[in-house]
Order: sequence, then structure tokens, then C-alpha cells
Amino acid sequence: MDYIVYLSGEIHTNWREQIRDGVASADLPVSLYSPVTNHEASDEVGVQILGAEEKPFWKDHKASKINAIRTNNMLQQADIVVVRFGDKYKQWNAAFDAGQAVAMGKQLIVMHAPELTHPLKEVDAQAMAVTETPQQVVEILRYICQA
Amino acid sequence: MDYIVYLSGEIHTNWREQIRDGVASADLPVSLYSPVTNHEASDEVGVQILGAEEKPFWKDHKASKINAIRTNNMLQQADIVVVRFGDKYKQWNAAFDAGQAVAMGKQLIVMHAPELTHPLKEVDAQAMAVTETPQQVVEILRYICQA
Amino acid sequence: MDYIVYLSGEIHTNWREQIRDGVASADLPVSLYSPVTNHEASDEVGVQILGAEEKPFWKDHKASKINAIRTNNMLQQADIVVVRFGDKYKQWNAAFDAGQAVAMGKQLIVMHAPELTHPLKEVDAQAMAVTETPQQVVEILRYICQA
Amino acid sequence: MDYIVYLSGEIHTNWREQIRDGVASADLPVSLYSPVTNHEASDEVGVQILGAEEKPFWKDHKASKINAIRTNNMLQQADIVVVRFGDKYKQWNAAFDAGQAVAMGKQLIVMHAPELTHPLKEVDAQAMAVTETPQQVVEILRYICQA
Amino acid sequence: MDYIVYLSGEIHTNWREQIRDGVASADLPVSLYSPVTNHEASDEVGVQILGAEEKPFWKDHKASKINAIRTNNMLQQADIVVVRFGDKYKQWNAAFDAGQAVAMGKQLIVMHAPELTHPLKEVDAQAMAVTETPQQVVEILRYICQA
Amino acid sequence: MDYIVYLSGEIHTNWREQIRDGVASADLPVSLYSPVTNHEASDEVGVQILGAEEKPFWKDHKASKINAIRTNNMLQQADIVVVRFGDKYKQWNAAFDAGQAVAMGKQLIVMHAPELTHPLKEVDAQAMAVTETPQQVVEILRYICQA
Amino acid sequence: MDYIVYLSGEIHTNWREQIRDGVASADLPVSLYSPVTNHEASDEVGVQILGAEEKPFWKDHKASKINAIRTNNMLQQADIVVVRFGDKYKQWNAAFDAGQAVAMGKQLIVMHAPELTHPLKEVDAQAMAVTETPQQVVEILRYICQA
Amino acid sequence: MDYIVYLSGEIHTNWREQIRDGVASADLPVSLYSPVTNHEASDEVGVQILGAEEKPFWKDHKASKINAIRTNNMLQQADIVVVRFGDKYKQWNAAFDAGQAVAMGKQLIVMHAPELTHPLKEVDAQAMAVTETPQQVVEILRYICQA
Repeated sequence: MDYIVYLSGEIHTNWREQIRDGVASADLPVSLYSPVTNHEASDEVGVQILGAEEKPFWKDHKASKINAIRTNNMLQQADIVVVRFGDKYKQWNAAFDAGQAVAMGKQLIVMHAPELTHPLKEVDAQAMAVTETPQQVVEILRYICQA
Repeated sequence: MDYIVYLSGEIHTNWREQIRDGVASADLPVSLYSPVTNHEASDEVGVQILGAEEKPFWKDHKASKINAIRTNNMLQQADIVVVRFGDKYKQWNAAFDAGQAVAMGKQLIVMHAPELTHPLKEVDAQAMAVTETPQQVVEILRYICQA
Repeated sequence: MDYIVYLSGEIHTNWREQIRDGVASADLPVSLYSPVTNHEASDEVGVQILGAEEKPFWKDHKASKINAIRTNNMLQQADIVVVRFGDKYKQWNAAFDAGQAVAMGKQLIVMHAPELTHPLKEVDAQAMAVTETPQQVVEILRYICQA
Repeated sequence: MDYIVYLSGEIHTNWREQIRDGVASADLPVSLYSPVTNHEASDEVGVQILGAEEKPFWKDHKASKINAIRTNNMLQQADIVVVRFGDKYKQWNAAFDAGQAVAMGKQLIVMHAPELTHPLKEVDAQAMAVTETPQQVVEILRYICQA
Repeated sequence: MDYIVYLSGEIHTNWREQIRDGVASADLPVSLYSPVTNHEASDEVGVQILGAEEKPFWKDHKASKINAIRTNNMLQQADIVVVRFGDKYKQWNAAFDAGQAVAMGKQLIVMHAPELTHPLKEVDAQAMAVTETPQQVVEILRYICQA
Repeated sequence: MDYIVYLSGEIHTNWREQIRDGVASADLPVSLYSPVTNHEASDEVGVQILGAEEKPFWKDHKASKINAIRTNNMLQQADIVVVRFGDKYKQWNAAFDAGQAVAMGKQLIVMHAPELTHPLKEVDAQAMAVTETPQQVVEILRYICQA
Repeated sequence: MDYIVYLSGEIHTNWREQIRDGVASADLPVSLYSPVTNHEASDEVGVQILGAEEKPFWKDHKASKINAIRTNNMLQQADIVVVRFGDKYKQWNAAFDAGQAVAMGKQLIVMHAPELTHPLKEVDAQAMAVTETPQQVVEILRYICQA
Repeated sequence: MDYIVYLSGEIHTNWREQIRDGVASADLPVSLYSPVTNHEASDEVGVQILGAEEKPFWKDHKASKINAIRTNNMLQQADIVVVRFGDKYKQWNAAFDAGQAVAMGKQLIVMHAPELTHPLKEVDAQAMAVTETPQQVVEILRYICQA
């Protein structure tokens, strides 16, 4: 079968490209979805399209909701959700996506360094795989795609 | 109507007690649920009941799953989920709970200091109220409980 | 069986009281839920509890979401949703509630004057009864409550 | 990913054509669905196909239900529902569609003039974007369609 | 556990009373729900409460929908649905109830004489028990109610 | 949009062919599904494939379940379910299909002669259109398929 | 909160009584449900109530379905499902119950000896706790029931 | 219509190939999905990709979860689930898959030798067909695929 995989979370390293390359090299029947990973565009989109706000709260609010139109659709369409946690920033949206994915019955794969095991234990506990590298995700996809 | 409210998130301040006191003072028809907030008991429960583990990952894993038996049931039973983010720790489990609550169609109330607005924008965007204090949560409960 | 009935819509006449009186007189096993019908309290609740807003849009936004915590819960708990349309105001929230009720699989009863038949045809089409008076609603409740 | 967008509400201006043109110009992977926007055909379809009625209520009833076969299917298939409210007519069916869309977990975009903010506050509160023009809807679609 | 049992179908023999007596004699923790079994009241309720109709179709339509407010709620609340088919009348509403019950995931018990086996084969095929007498239904309830 | 339409019920007249011809003539984007309409094949399939039975009940049981593999899938895939009731036979399976369709949220169209209005009132009450001829079904499909 | 716990699986040791005693001793707010554990009654119930069968297959079939009326209801009502696998018999029904429980979103606790780890790995993988003794189940219940 | 069929269970005989050949010979519009049937690869995949474990329990755990990413997706996509039980091994995963399939509303076909009737009675009771050979499954597929 074909799989739709939504790649959620950290946006400051090239892990999505590595997965994309791995999937392409192995010629896997996998469609990869991503949020808008241009940080500035993603932060500005609300006021850009819908008009300026004085309070940062409402600026963020309008941006987050437009981004949610995309991410909610991707979460709903996805068969598998991969969420990567980096070592910087709060990344609460990554954990929030993971929570939605689990409640929607999607198969969750988490990616993070071993140092983050303790704070991520609740997320890991409901994942189908806890990985450390994009290569491991590609290997899992290759394994589940075999005839 | 009566409401079941699940109080998720930060466990190092007495915000739950403040809400509990406010609800009791106002004699509201509200049942309050909480996770196990004894940090050590919560971390140790897996190995305590199910046997020791050498790797911290599996120790955390066993604990988180037992805790999930409680929290998943509370999330399913709840009408309203209040999630508080403090200024310390990663608190990914709080955002994870918030994600599950939203995907389950629960009414979400978030509580955090204004400084956390930007990293919490995706969570706030799907909440029905973004509060800063336990008193505001009590006021909301009082408002929605009126005859 | 007992029924939970949510009374949605128009708030400027005493139709809810008439239904309440009818249900009490007939001693029916019916719990009646209502939104906050104090117009001013309902409009002000957002800024009252969560802080002032300059733009009317955000003032309304905060109020509507707090009110939604109540109404969404009532819609979810209800077995039957009665929605009354009056001859004044836009009352889009009444039609919005009716739409949610139908999509949630609730039994919908609509109440309005015959003059409103044409603009309400889509709502009426998915209702289980189209009434004109509170007395008719009480009669329906009495009928379905018989042993 | 591709999106299916259902354009609900006001039928007396050419806003749907503007969105259609914008989507075509930008070559977006978006399918646009609309209700039957020929007002007379839509009003007459019940008696036209299923036979005459003396009472206007039943004439409307038969028409609305045939139209609902189309609109209910479009609501169920849609990923995003755009609902436009004009300054004329009651447009309760627009708010009714919006209520169904929200309860079905669809992403809702509302379009209306700022003057309608107060009566539409409950609908706006559950929308992912509140726009004023078709161009803003197109910009949102372009934003969420980027690679 | 306690069970809610909805007794649907044939209304011209006293099978419901026999089940009611059997449940009472055995003191089972079972709540029994029934449609309105007064044939005339059930046929007239629409025009009685909501006003006269010239066409029999609309008279039936209004009555059936008011009855559906009751039966849809009972179907939704029930744990078990018992549907009895007699040897007279079309009883399409009984089969219609059975279809709804199965699609809602309720446990279905059918009751009918052996002569009706062939025309009822599709309904029987999705039932958990095919009985011939009220006593058999009572025996099943007694069996599943044991400690 | 394209529609999948499941044609359920009476199998002794050529109404399905008339709809098929009408859909083909009008070149509508409609896929038509049918149960196995070969009466004998449908009755014998259980014992044919799975082995003989002495009791007619089990012969029917095995056949009905194999047929249900097909019809349940068609009901689940369908956007619209058309159910025709003829003037002969019990046709409880038609009403059973209609009940399942309604509980699954499918749009229901019923077809029957006016003489059957009273015994079919509960089914008609939850239908989106009550037709008498295949031509009316085709007209409805043509109407909802227009651009 | 209170919990409903369904105790599924092996019926030849007194593990249910041990859990029942533990729950009673600790005075936990837990309701315990069980299938009919009288092996002979459970095997004979179909033919006992619904009439004799010559083929063992149909005898088993009728019995299993009556038992399913009870177990399906218990699975639906339960918050937590405990499934014990013993060292004898096939116990496919235990694994079948576990599969249903997981697909219904229930919290699953498995109990079995360590020797059965390999053949039960797929079931264990989706459980929230894998225990070996009734005492461990009681400890988990005590832990999640604390204030 | 086209069908997606997931072939679950026993992996030591060539029953899947026989079904695959039968489907190909008859040119049926059926897509066949299978779990990874290479026993060793399936057992080793967890430690192979995600790193070694000392305890067999965690080795199995990691492997089972990666396999579940595949099988859960296949169960969700499938229209029909065929589960074969052989005469060797515990095969609890086969019964576990069957339980999930039934709870998800999939049409279940079971395959096993007559000797296994008694221990499989609960699974058989909720199946749409109980077969003994791959040829019978192919015949059922051919029957339900006819025009």
C-alpha cells in the first residue's frame, strides 16, 4: 500500500530533506507532507493576509490558525505522523501535533536525541517507534513498504 | 449542567488547589480531575509495580503508560480540559494532552504567562480561552455554571 | 427515558420560561439547558474575565469562545435541541447551533413564525418538527415522554 | 496535498468566480465545490421533479432536501469550507452550513464585511480565518498550497 | 452491569408485556424502552400537535418525525435492541429500526415465527440471537445478567 | 463532484437499468452499485461455496452473510443510497438497508408507489427524497451533478 | 474518577477473585465486569435457549453470539480491559477481546507468564501495562485511583 | 466496486499465494495486502533498526510496534479482512487482528480447519464467512465482484 506521512516538528535542521532523499533513493510509495517550514512566513502570514494587529497575541493567533488549516488537513490525511524534537526552543506545537495524531488513531513515530527521553516519555509511550535519526525513519518506511 | 474538568500540565505550583478552592467556595457543580502530581511516585510507578529496568528509557516507558491509563480515561471523561504551562521544564506532556483534548472535541482552556505567548501560539489558537491565573479559570467556570 | 433538551436561539421573549412551565406542570422527566440569556453579560464576558480589547472583533471573539465552552457542552450532552428564530436580529448563532446539532446526530425541533418559512427552509428540512409556539414543543415532549 | 473547498453562502455576487479565477491563475491543486447557485432552479426543484404542492412550506421542504443531497455530500467531502455572508437576506442556511462544517471537523473560513462582526461572532469564533474579500481566501489557499 | 433494552416492532400482540413481566419476575437490572404503541395516537400525533394536512403523505410525515424523536433517542441510548416481526402488516419500520441498530453497533435480537425465516434472512444474519418467543428473550436477558 | 450511488431493494423489475440508462444518457459523473440481483444465485451462494446445510435457516444465514460482505461495503462507500420498494414480497432487507444508510449518515432516496405511503412513513420521514419512478431519481442526480 | 474494568480471558484459575478481593480490600471506586465464567453454561447456552443443533459449529455459533451480547456491552462500557492468558488452551477469544478493546480506544492491561512473551508480543505492544499477577493489576488500579 | 483485502494470520503455508493466484486468474478488482511474512525479518526489525535490547521482551516490543505501523494501516484501509488460523503455534496475533477488524466495522472472513471450530467460536461468530480453503475465499471474492 501507499502511505501518506506527515513530518511535523523541528524546522531548523534538514531532517525533512534527509527523509525525502531516502524515500526518493529507495523509490518508496510514500507521499511526504510538511508544514510551512519558512519560519518568518509562518509567523507573518496572519497579519500579511488578514491585516495588522497591535497585540502580538492576536498576530500570533491569526497566523497559527491559518497554519492550522494546513496542518489539520495534513494530520487528517496522514497514515503516519513523524514528529521530531530538537534540542532548542520549546517546540510545544510538535508535542501538540503528536497529541492530535494519537487521538486521531494515526501511527506516531517520534525522533529525538536520547537526552530528551525523560521529558518526552509521555509522547514516546504512545509512539510506534522512537528514533534518533532520519535514516531510521527511512529504514522503517522501507521495511513497511516491502511487498 | 454539571461539568467534569481535567486539570493537566504543570505540577510544581499550587494552581490546582487554587481552582479547587475557588470551585468549592462558589459551590459549583464541577468535578475536578488531576493526573498523579507526586513527581517521584509518577516517575517510579512503572518499575515499582512491574519490575526494574536497566535502561532509563524503559523505566520511563513503563511509568508513562501506567500514568496514561489514568490520564487517557480522564481526557475521555472530561467536558473541559485546562492545561497550564509554567516557565520551567519542557512540559511536552502538557502540550501533548492539549493536542489529544482538541482532537477529541473537548473544550480547551490554556493557562500561561504572557511571555509564553509566541511558543504556545498553536495551542492557544485552538483553545476556547487563554488565561493567566487560576482565578480566571474559576471565573469562567462560574460564568458557564450560572442557571 | 429521560431527555436532556437544549433550548437555543432567540433571547428576547419568554419562550424558554413557557417551556419550563409546561414541562414542570406536566412533571416531565426532561432537563432543560439554556445558553446564558443575559445579553449584556454574554457580550461582556470575554473582556470582563480575560482583559480589555480595543478592537470590537477581539472583544466579541473572546466572549463568543467562553460562551462556546457552555454551548458546545450543552449541544454534546443534549438529546434534543430546540432552536427558536424570532423576527428580529440576524440570529446566525441560532442557525449555527442548529447546524452543529444536526451534524452531531441530535434530534432538532425548530420554532418560528410561518413568515420565516422560506429563509429557514434548509434548517426546517433537517428538523424533526417545525413548531410555532412553546406549547407545541411542550406537547411534543409530553407525547414522547409517555410510558 | 490537494484540497477540496466547498464555497457556501451568499449567491448574489460573483465571489465564487473571483475565487475560481484566483485559484486558476495561481494553478493551485484545489477543487472548488458550490451549491446550486441558480436561485430559481434551487427553489423550484422539489415541485419540478417530485410534483406540485399547495402549501409553500412543503414546496420549500421538498426543494431543500434535494439541495441537501448535494450540499451534505459536498460538506462531507470538503477539507475546507468557506462561508460568505452578504449584507442582504437572512442567510440562515449559510450559518447552518457553517455549524455543520465545524461539527464535522472541517476547517472553516468565514467571509463578511466588518459591519457584520457582532451578529456573526459565534460563527467567527470557531473559524480558522475571518476574511473580507475573495482575494484573501485565494491568498490563504496559495499559502497553504506551497510546497 | 445494567442494560437498556429497546423493544421495537410489532404492536398488536402483548409480547412487550410478557418481556416486562419476565424481567420483573426475575428482578433483572434491565430498563425496557418502547415506542408509542397506541396505533391511533402514533398516526395522529403530527396533525394533532402541528396542524392539519390535506395530503396523507404529509400527515404521515409529520407523525413519523415526531415519533422518530422518541425512537432515535431510544435507539441511541439502548445497549440491546429487540425487534419483533409479526405475521401481519408490512412492518418496514421494524426492519428499518433493525438496520439503524446494527449500524450503530447495538446488539440486535430478532423475534419472529419460523415461517418468516427466508424474507428476514438479511436481518437475522446480523442479529446476535434469533428468537421465536418473549420467553426466550427473557432467558437471554437472565443469562447475560448473571453475576 | 462525483457520486457513488447504491441501488438497493426490489429486484424483479428493471428500475436499475432505467437509472443506469438515464445516467449514461446524461453522461453524469455517477457510479452505480447494486447488490447481486440474480435471486437464485443470491439464495444459493452460502451452501454453494461453504457447503450444504440441512436446515433452511442456516442455508439462508450463510448466503445472507456472504451477500452482506458486498452490500455492507457498498453502503459504506456510497454517497447516496436509493431504496426501491415494490408491491410484492416483504422486502424487509430493503428497509434494513435504508436503516443502515440513515444511521451511517448517507443521503437516502426512497422509491415506491403512493399506495405504500402509510407503511413506509418511517422510512420516508428520514429520506431526502421520496420518488415514484426511476426517471425522478435520474432527474435528481442530474440536478445535483450540474456544475 | 470511578473506573469500569472488564476482566477478560482465562477462566480456569481464580485470578478474577484475587483482583476482586484486592479492589474490595483497598476500597477502590472500581466496578469489575466479567464474562460468564461457567464453562459449561457458556458452551450450552445457545442450544439451551434457542433450540438444539446437530452440527457442533452451529451449537457453538448460537452460544458465542449470546455470550457476545454480554461481552460486547461490557467492552463498550469499560474504561479499562484486563486480559489474562493462561498456559493452557488456545484462548483465541482472549486475544480477540484484546483486539476489540484496542480498536475501541480502551486502555488495555495484559496478564501472562513471561514464557508467553514471544507469541503475545503483538498484543503486549498495544497494552498500557503487561503484568504477571493479579496483585500487579490491583496495584495499578490503586495507583490510578489515588486522589 | 474494487475491494482492498487484508490477509492476516498464519505465515507458514502458501495460502496467500493461492488467493493471489486465484484473484489474478479471475482478474478480480481486488488489492491484496499482507503483513511482513518473513518470520525472521519480522522478529528482528526492532533491534535491527532501533538498536539492540538485552531483554527479549523489549526486543519483541520494538519489533511488534514497527510491524503494527504496517498492519494498523492495512486494517484501516481494508474493506475485507481474511484471517487464517493454522494448526500450529499460538497465533494470538491473528485473533487480535480479527478483534480489531470487527471493532473497526470491517467485513471479516475466517479460514481454519474444522477441528478448530470450538476454540475459534467467538471469532467465527462475528465473521461474515467461515472458510476452510483459499479457494473458498477466492470464490467469495469472485461472487461479490460480479457486475
